[in-house]
Amino acid sequence: MMKRKGILIVVSGFSGAGKGTLMKQLVHSYDNYALSVSMTTRKPRPGEEEGREYFFVTRHEFERQIEEGGLIEHASYCGNYYGTPREYVRRQLEKGKDVILEIEIQGALKIKEKFPTALLLFVMPPNAAELKKRLEGRGTETPEVIEKRLERASEEAEGIENYDYIVINDRLEECVEEMHGLILAAHRTPERNGELIREMRKELEAFAK
Amino acid sequence: MMKRKGILIVVSGFSGAGKGTLMKQLVHSYDNYALSVSMTTRKPRPGEEEGREYFFVTRHEFERQIEEGGLIEHASYCGNYYGTPREYVRRQLEKGKDVILEIEIQGALKIKEKFPTALLLFVMPPNAAELKKRLEGRGTETPEVIEKRLERASEEAEGIENYDYIVINDRLEECVEEMHGLILAAHRTPERNGELIREMRKELEAFAK
Repeated sequence: MMKRKGILIVVSGFSGAGKGTLMKQLVHSYDNYALSVSMTTRKPRPGEEEGREYFFVTRHEFERQIEEGGLIEHASYCGNYYGTPREYVRRQLEKGKDVILEIEIQGALKIKEKFPTALLLFVMPPNAAELKKRLEGRGTETPEVIEKRLERASEEAEGIENYDYIVINDRLEECVEEMHGLILAAHRTPERNGELIREMRKELEAFAK
Repeated sequence: MMKRKGILIVVSGFSGAGKGTLMKQLVHSYDNYALSVSMTTRKPRPGEEEGREYFFVTRHEFERQIEEGGLIEHASYCGNYYGTPREYVRRQLEKGKDVILEIEIQGALKIKEKFPTALLLFVMPPNAAELKKRLEGRGTETPEVIEKRLERASEEAEGIENYDYIVINDRLEECVEEMHGLILAAHRTPERNGELIREMRKELEAFAK
């Protein structure tokens, strides 16, 4: 019996598309997932917990991690560093877990370069009207925030073709099921089954003798 | 609401992998599938029905179909022609049905060239021992038949990387479910959702003005 190999899953998508909720629900509903926790230099906000939302470190510690290759990818945003610790991801993948990261498009493409079998998922609302509603928020956002979200969404929309699947987030429960199905499908591509294919070919050759 | 677009699905796989049973069960279990019926110049065998197993035509009629572009692909095998009628496939796809064809690897690659969004599925037994058992048949096959199957399997095995997904046929019911899941996943790739993506982009632009 071949050992199940974990897949590195990158989740991106429009602001307000519900990525965070989806990912939490997925991890809660199935036991083959592990959620990657990012490292950051930004200060914890009220209610945030070390190791749950983020690993909170100093700038000095973060730069040491970069130098030592301790991060799969990292980026700077609003004057703070954000990155994905390599060790946790490696250990979970080895255990056969599918590891989920939430990351924007630039980071997603960097991950795909380093890990060609990483799975890239793009979460979006079911239609444009819903997208608009979500970008506008609950009417409590300032015009500047909406403007920023819109710019961000336009940038992200340019990169959709780089993703493996589009996840349409209409109803949460259905969407979690669907997302799980997409990941199961990804486990069935030839490039993620090199060992199985090699075994079959070897056996066919042996059989021919 | 966007119209569901049908996918052209090509099923290949090792001899004895259970492709035919799988496909029939899939069409029986879900109503979004249509099974393509091939056209052939070979004579009907006892129990075969016109329009069910094949459309049986004369050599003259088949060649007329080739000339008129009435076939998506065709091949010659053991002195007989086999081909896929274009009109039936076109009509079903337009209705939003996913159309399933069973075809060997050369034909599968030709289809993929003409229809870049065609989905290529490769059916295989769960492991090499099972593959061996299936190639050998029920012990009633002649050495020549086994030899031929083996050669064929080796050829097909060389091409697995051209397929989108590997379908592991262990238990029929589970496999049908899984195959359905793979096809649902295929409906979620960016290249099969060009219209949705264009709509989103257009709306984002309109929103920015």
